Amino acid sequence: MFERSEFTRALGIELVGSGDGWCETTLEPGPAQRQQHGHVHAAVVFALADHTAGGAAGGAVGPERDVITVENTITFLRPAAGRLRCRGQVLRAGRTLVFAEAEVRDAKDILVAKLSSTLSVIPNEIS
Amino acid sequence: MFERSEFTRALGIELVGSGDGWCETTLEPGPAQRQQHGHVHAAVVFALADHTAGGAAGGAVGPERDVITVENTITFLRPAAGRLRCRGQVLRAGRTLVFAEAEVRDAKDILVAKLSSTLSVIPNEIS
Amino acid sequence: MFERSEFTRALGIELVGSGDGWCETTLEPGPAQRQQHGHVHAAVVFALADHTAGGAAGGAVGPERDVITVENTITFLRPAAGRLRCRGQVLRAGRTLVFAEAEVRDAKDILVAKLSSTLSVIPNEIS
Amino acid sequence: MFERSEFTRALGIELVGSGDGWCETTLEPGPAQRQQHGHVHAAVVFALADHTAGGAAGGAVGPERDVITVENTITFLRPAAGRLRCRGQVLRAGRTLVFAEAEVRDAKDILVAKLSSTLSVIPNEIS
Repeated sequence: MFERSEFTRALGIELVGSGDGWCETTLEPGPAQRQQHGHVHAAVVFALADHTAGGAAGGAVGPERDVITVENTITFLRPAAGRLRCRGQVLRAGRTLVFAEAEVRDAKDILVAKLSSTLSVIPNEIS
Repeated sequence: MFERSEFTRALGIELVGSGDGWCETTLEPGPAQRQQHGHVHAAVVFALADHTAGGAAGGAVGPERDVITVENTITFLRPAAGRLRCRGQVLRAGRTLVFAEAEVRDAKDILVAKLSSTLSVIPNEIS
Repeated sequence: MFERSEFTRALGIELVGSGDGWCETTLEPGPAQRQQHGHVHAAVVFALADHTAGGAAGGAVGPERDVITVENTITFLRPAAGRLRCRGQVLRAGRTLVFAEAEVRDAKDILVAKLSSTLSVIPNEIS
Repeated sequence: MFERSEFTRALGIELVGSGDGWCETTLEPGPAQRQQHGHVHAAVVFALADHTAGGAAGGAVGPERDVITVENTITFLRPAAGRLRCRGQVLRAGRTLVFAEAEVRDAKDILVAKLSSTLSVIPNEIS
């Protein structure tokens, strides 16, 4: 998944690690990823959180199936700046739906955003 | 706002029009904005919807104030492909909070995503 | 559906009408449905909106299938008082998921709350 | 707060404990709180989670201020049955907004619902 998405690769999201129902990533936001107040753009924080929740969910459904985001709620707790770190965690992996969340933290380990994600399980069309 | 955000400008989001509590934009997604299944990446759809809801909200608070996204819920109704069009609409503009939503439609005018946004009113630090 | 749910019947939610992908209800909140500030309790507004979105979604999947709420986002735009009216509308009815929303308005037709709902399609175990 | 809300008192929500930025409650759902499939009604689970997140948030703003729910997202992970327990936790308490979440677990300590809440800080009109 982290190899196949051009958009997230271009953003610079890097995989730190993953396991049974979790995924960790990191991103060093560049100048082009800022909004008009100089903070990291909400859509960049969203991309990081969505991708990491998806990574956690994808790991939980196994290699023969894939996941696609159905619904995401993201709360921006504080303006984000500097290197970001994200941990995605599956809350429940069902047969047709997976529920996951992701926390985005800054370099001081302060929570800057939290995402709640509902994903649909689909056949893995590529493998 | 549309001039000041590097990230959304780089994505190619274009302003179509705006007025009292509404904003319309369009985006022709490039190959780099696709995810692993070939559809427009969720974060790109999010960026379009968030930015357009923010444009609608920003217009509702007047030039001396600005808005910042607090919380967004986005539902991905269908995979998105081709040119996208988005309309943001303010549901309520209060003194400290603005509530807006945005609909993203494809070239056939089919609804592909809907966003519900809560924004915080802040002083306009730039003007 | 409106006959079978004891909880919503006890709340006093009444069906006004329904059709292909929509549903309308009304509720006259009693004193016991208020919170500490005298407004209608958020959970009562939620119950009305959830039930009405569910009514709209249930109508869209046909009599042999039913729906169950997976995820709801509700925005409380204004304190609610007096008789409430709610309209639920299906945004998309898929094979396994239905997306709906509901608007709650007060006696002056002012929007007081908006709900976005994701529902799962299940077999109708009763009919 | 737990004394003043008639609706939640009537539902049977009981305070278990509370502290700096957290709150715990419990509810033994009665037959009247079930929906058509026999599970606890979504609105009852919502009421429990909303009230507990609000209790956590209210404790974080101090006695001279109160909180009111602005936006709630709730995910229903599994059908709920039997005695429910809920823990609310503040993610961030700002000057005008508080962000909290709440987890609802069943008697086997299995997570059945998760709520993400944005609350507005208001003057405490009663004290």
